[in-house]
Amino acid sequence: LRRPLKVLQFGLGPIGLAAARLVLEKPSLELAGAVDIDPAKVGKDLGVLLGIGPIGKKVYASLHDLPARSRPDAALHCTVSWLEEAVPQLIELASRGIAVVSSTEELLYPWWKYRNLAARLDRKAKRMGIAILGTGVNPGFVLDTVPLVLSGACTRVDRIRLERVVDAGTRRMPLQRKIGAGLSVEEWTRRARAGRMGHAGFVESVALVAKGLGWELSSITERLHPAIAEQAHRTEYLRVEPGQVTGIHQTCTGRFKRREVIHADLQMYVGAENPHDRIVIEGSPRLDIRFEGGVAGDAATAAMLVNMVPLVAKAEPGLKSILDLPMPRFLGGSAA
Amino acid sequence: LRRPLKVLQFGLGPIGLAAARLVLEKPSLELAGAVDIDPAKVGKDLGVLLGIGPIGKKVYASLHDLPARSRPDAALHCTVSWLEEAVPQLIELASRGIAVVSSTEELLYPWWKYRNLAARLDRKAKRMGIAILGTGVNPGFVLDTVPLVLSGACTRVDRIRLERVVDAGTRRMPLQRKIGAGLSVEEWTRRARAGRMGHAGFVESVALVAKGLGWELSSITERLHPAIAEQAHRTEYLRVEPGQVTGIHQTCTGRFKRREVIHADLQMYVGAENPHDRIVIEGSPRLDIRFEGGVAGDAATAAMLVNMVPLVAKAEPGLKSILDLPMPRFLGGSAA
Repeated sequence: LRRPLKVLQFGLGPIGLAAARLVLEKPSLELAGAVDIDPAKVGKDLGVLLGIGPIGKKVYASLHDLPARSRPDAALHCTVSWLEEAVPQLIELASRGIAVVSSTEELLYPWWKYRNLAARLDRKAKRMGIAILGTGVNPGFVLDTVPLVLSGACTRVDRIRLERVVDAGTRRMPLQRKIGAGLSVEEWTRRARAGRMGHAGFVESVALVAKGLGWELSSITERLHPAIAEQAHRTEYLRVEPGQVTGIHQTCTGRFKRREVIHADLQMYVGAENPHDRIVIEGSPRLDIRFEGGVAGDAATAAMLVNMVPLVAKAEPGLKSILDLPMPRFLGGSAA
Repeated sequence: LRRPLKVLQFGLGPIGLAAARLVLEKPSLELAGAVDIDPAKVGKDLGVLLGIGPIGKKVYASLHDLPARSRPDAALHCTVSWLEEAVPQLIELASRGIAVVSSTEELLYPWWKYRNLAARLDRKAKRMGIAILGTGVNPGFVLDTVPLVLSGACTRVDRIRLERVVDAGTRRMPLQRKIGAGLSVEEWTRRARAGRMGHAGFVESVALVAKGLGWELSSITERLHPAIAEQAHRTEYLRVEPGQVTGIHQTCTGRFKRREVIHADLQMYVGAENPHDRIVIEGSPRLDIRFEGGVAGDAATAAMLVNMVPLVAKAEPGLKSILDLPMPRFLGGSAA
């Protein structure tokens, strides 16, 4: 029997906490401790933060403080959405020879927007002999990995249409804030212009699908609109009045020459009806599949991250996309 | 730009012909010729057999007759369903250093039923530096690969239920014969007892899913029943009268201790209504997806075989399952 892989939880936000909790359930993984910058968490026992009582693993303020003997094989990196902010953290993890599975949305497929940063991460990972992967559920699963796998049964693919409708009212507070629920249209627009409003990683999903299909896209265009409330909604965290913004409607289109070959449509707002995910592959055979109710974001993202750990830990060194690795699958009972 | 991979078509039945046709459409693949034992095909131009006119590639009676200069990188092996019959062919291909993607249903996951044969193939493949993979659509995609990928987003998997309903009346003649459509119940039962009636590779699908989830099954049980016609049906190839067999109802159950953890249900008969594929993952999140109309068998099987060629050609040597390889995806325009 192989020894369990030692996993460092890097970042203890909602996703990070869910991932750490999941690591504890896996016989083939062992929690090596955690890193978080929140002074309210540093020094605490990780098990106490997870609500299961002391487990003898502490939260450290930085990698620097991590005891030398803890020597993690892999880190679950769950901090920021944007690649530029994540890079110093990823480099630091790589420098210590720790493989990385990250929820940073822009790391899903960084070669489209950030060719140089991607090359830098790849060089570092290769030099240190570890693999780095960005993954999750959206991006990382419903609108990219699953359609790619489905396309494997196609003799011809003409166009891919992706659709995700999320009732943000059922999701956690940071998400409801991120989509601007409860803002006036003016305020929403001001913040959207300042950037970083809406769903991160959309362009990366489309770029990943194109790469997987061997399509060289000419362009990827993203659009973001506010969804406006027709009636009042109240969530656990906020209120939305009629006429206020209730969330986002975001689209992302990949074109080859002038032809639209990938179109992804995301509606994420408080009060969205019939939440679901849908994948349509126009081609032969035409495939049309639907996840009734949709694939819940946070828990499923933590699952993807943790399930990928053994595959990333034994991957060839370098910055990877999911195209380079064995397919995701639930990490079950016995050692991997 | 890399040179195209040279692909040998081994076996020119309906799947083999469809696969060879598809190879011709792929810029990253090149057809190196074909092998088939049918005297009516040997010596013919492969393009003529495919109905597209001469392409300067011939059909040979055996690998032995293949010109030395043709040196294929990979073979699409499309001959038989049963592993024991396929092994001599696979060994012969491996001996020549040709990687193999095979439609042999029992090759999908041969370690459950044929541990020794699998070990022998693995040794041979490693010695010759090539990879061997069994794949297809069923088995190989709808009831194994797709549920495995979906499970990647789960924090917990309790049980997997799989369901495939195929209207055999829309399928090719060998399939209608294989399920015994138009036979009396007595004759069907006699042939079923002699073995080799029904869908091959079902046990292998269940074994592959279990392996992917890290579940050590205690048993896999397969059951085969005739579906009886309530009304008359007429297909392009045969007639079914009321009271006669119209096809099969086959189930396959994987148990851990006494608990049923994987249950697959296949109904394949002339006149089946609402053909579809359905995957239910009981767990968290619960996933329930449906392919409306189902995933058509033959074309999709040819697609899976051809789409996997570049991934198998560059895989580590050995006998592989799809769990060892990057995930399937449509093989598109540019070189792989």
